[in-house]
Amino acid sequence: MAIIVQKFGGSSVADAECVKNVARLAIAEHEKGKQVVVVVSAMGKTTDNLLNLARQITDVPDPREIDMLISTGEQISIAMLAIAIQSMGVPARSFTGPQVGIITDNAHRKAKIVRINDEKIRRELNKGEIVIVAGFQGTTLDNEVTTLGRGGSDTTAIALAAVLEAEVCDIYTDVDGVYTADPRIVPNARKLKRITYDEMLELASLGAKVLHSRSVEIGKNYNVPIHVRSSFDNIPGTMVVKEIKEMEDIVVSGVAYNRNEAKISLLGVPDKPGVAASLFGTLGERNIVVDMIIQNVGADELNDITFTVSKDDLDEALIVAEAAAKELGAKNVVHDRSIAKVSVVGVGMKSHSGVAATMFRALAKNKINIGMISTSEIKISCVIKETDVDRAVQAIHKEFELAEIQHE
Amino acid sequence: MAIIVQKFGGSSVADAECVKNVARLAIAEHEKGKQVVVVVSAMGKTTDNLLNLARQITDVPDPREIDMLISTGEQISIAMLAIAIQSMGVPARSFTGPQVGIITDNAHRKAKIVRINDEKIRRELNKGEIVIVAGFQGTTLDNEVTTLGRGGSDTTAIALAAVLEAEVCDIYTDVDGVYTADPRIVPNARKLKRITYDEMLELASLGAKVLHSRSVEIGKNYNVPIHVRSSFDNIPGTMVVKEIKEMEDIVVSGVAYNRNEAKISLLGVPDKPGVAASLFGTLGERNIVVDMIIQNVGADELNDITFTVSKDDLDEALIVAEAAAKELGAKNVVHDRSIAKVSVVGVGMKSHSGVAATMFRALAKNKINIGMISTSEIKISCVIKETDVDRAVQAIHKEFELAEIQHE
Repeated sequence: MAIIVQKFGGSSVADAECVKNVARLAIAEHEKGKQVVVVVSAMGKTTDNLLNLARQITDVPDPREIDMLISTGEQISIAMLAIAIQSMGVPARSFTGPQVGIITDNAHRKAKIVRINDEKIRRELNKGEIVIVAGFQGTTLDNEVTTLGRGGSDTTAIALAAVLEAEVCDIYTDVDGVYTADPRIVPNARKLKRITYDEMLELASLGAKVLHSRSVEIGKNYNVPIHVRSSFDNIPGTMVVKEIKEMEDIVVSGVAYNRNEAKISLLGVPDKPGVAASLFGTLGERNIVVDMIIQNVGADELNDITFTVSKDDLDEALIVAEAAAKELGAKNVVHDRSIAKVSVVGVGMKSHSGVAATMFRALAKNKINIGMISTSEIKISCVIKETDVDRAVQAIHKEFELAEIQHE
Repeated sequence: MAIIVQKFGGSSVADAECVKNVARLAIAEHEKGKQVVVVVSAMGKTTDNLLNLARQITDVPDPREIDMLISTGEQISIAMLAIAIQSMGVPARSFTGPQVGIITDNAHRKAKIVRINDEKIRRELNKGEIVIVAGFQGTTLDNEVTTLGRGGSDTTAIALAAVLEAEVCDIYTDVDGVYTADPRIVPNARKLKRITYDEMLELASLGAKVLHSRSVEIGKNYNVPIHVRSSFDNIPGTMVVKEIKEMEDIVVSGVAYNRNEAKISLLGVPDKPGVAASLFGTLGERNIVVDMIIQNVGADELNDITFTVSKDDLDEALIVAEAAAKELGAKNVVHDRSIAKVSVVGVGMKSHSGVAATMFRALAKNKINIGMISTSEIKISCVIKETDVDRAVQAIHKEFELAEIQHE
């Protein structure tokens, strides 16, 4: 029997009425004869409220205890959803991440899934039950509760879809699909019917909030068909699929932006081997993700090293950078919290030239200064001032005529 | 090294400030060189709020899912307390009931502790950490989350004190000890310095809200010294101890009442063997605790069977009673929700006569009608109208001169 995995975010289960709506969506698939696994996030603002509670005690709580605290959010949701589905006459049963065998590493608040024991879920599905699993959480082999960090519930859902070989993973959210740009910034942005894993991956890591990149990566690796759709309107959303030939006619699929960026520069670093390895090694050990890195050598054999991290990680990254600067004999460390990143993404870039030029022209026309540039096979990103983001996204969307292209 | 177990109820951890206060009380013992285990309940009204959330979906939620839902309350408390203790510079670590190996039977919402694996706690204590354990919850051998029902956190604490052979189990609460009567009803009620397990057991099962009877029973069976004290005033409370000889001079230790009683009568039951066994067997299977039972045979060989249950169980007990009445050919089932029970308790009753007469006289003087009577070696209980409770407690307290006796 075909299995489908459904994932509902916090806004889809914000209150009892929303939970009933989710119950109906799960039951609808169950009645079509599917085996249904539902993954839910914490209700509405629960996670933020719990974090605020901890903050009333200290600003630097132990990550292990924060995981203990915030994992209760999803546990509340799964119980509520089980109660709702049962009240509609359909058998259902809820499980926490630890109960269902979602094994992670030991990195509290940023844990990665190591493996999933799917036995228990399959056993429950075979009893005819709708199986409800808490998103965002897992357990170490030592029986410690962990949470998966940003995008954790998407990751849970797509990883479950992978091990269960589900025919589709429906990601229900408060938007009805993936757009050529954020519709709040670009009113004539267009919904994409399909997008490739690689494009979605770039969009996700670039700040499109629909799906987190790590969940898309799992989808890509295990070839899980992902359907991004609205929990409030029953209309088709955007399918995230493997790359297919005719798609290459589309040069650019969308414009993304990320305001959650900050920049750190080490100035006047003596040019010795191993400098970058030492600095970025330490940042990696602390689970700080570095995005762009630029290094340029001056005439005096002193380097300037500039890199970007998420604003959340800035304070910790600065501590590492200051220590590294001291050790390496660098002259100075400066940082900028008011930057952002805009990007264009499209698999067609591989075979089309001039994309970068079009993007730079759009920014130049609007007198938007470019701070850093980074490219991959299918994306081009520019760091700009945070205050320029809206104008930049609008200008790029217009320059590439994204509102007009019919994406099939 | 001596181990002590501290237990804090919901009102002692109602907000971040209260949690910090609890942290200081735990640290104070830790600094005296004790190994400290802290058991906490859910913060303030958390459990009620969660139950209300479920009620927004259905009035008859699955007990398994309710356990999944409400066990999050204590999990929040333990994480908060660990964060608070750590922020004061003392190592601490929180554990859920399942994590720490509190194994229960399968009776959701009313689970009984089967055994506790104390290894993990001892290992953590030996690291010098304050160990924080979620009260009220455990796990079945099938890895299902259970809750222990009323008085669950006291039960967790005293059971832990038993297996850890703690030198004392401090029960911190919002009252500063056990009184000769409820001070809200009898303003001159007196705090007892000591009370025996048996007396506390009777008082607890009779409705004194300080300690639940099942937790006292564990204390008695394993001879755990229990100290009932206030989390807001650092003054000695009431020690619950083994019976000792000189205590027998005290005839009556206290007056208790319980408003949470309801009465069911099966009228005109044909007099056949096995009638009571069938009815009360079914109630037992459903985990409904029956308190008093009275049966009297009429001239026509038809019995009237009357029994009391807690008001919470009345609806379910009525269903059982109606079914049994049909099966047994009883004439009628009636019930009364507006009853209550008053009781006097004292180990001295064993060797003193006239206690019952004194109690009945107190009630008679005040024109309070007695519906049912039940006695044990150390207590006498009377069922009365719920509206008579305050007057009855005051009358009995006065008649036995409890305000004047010096209990040493």
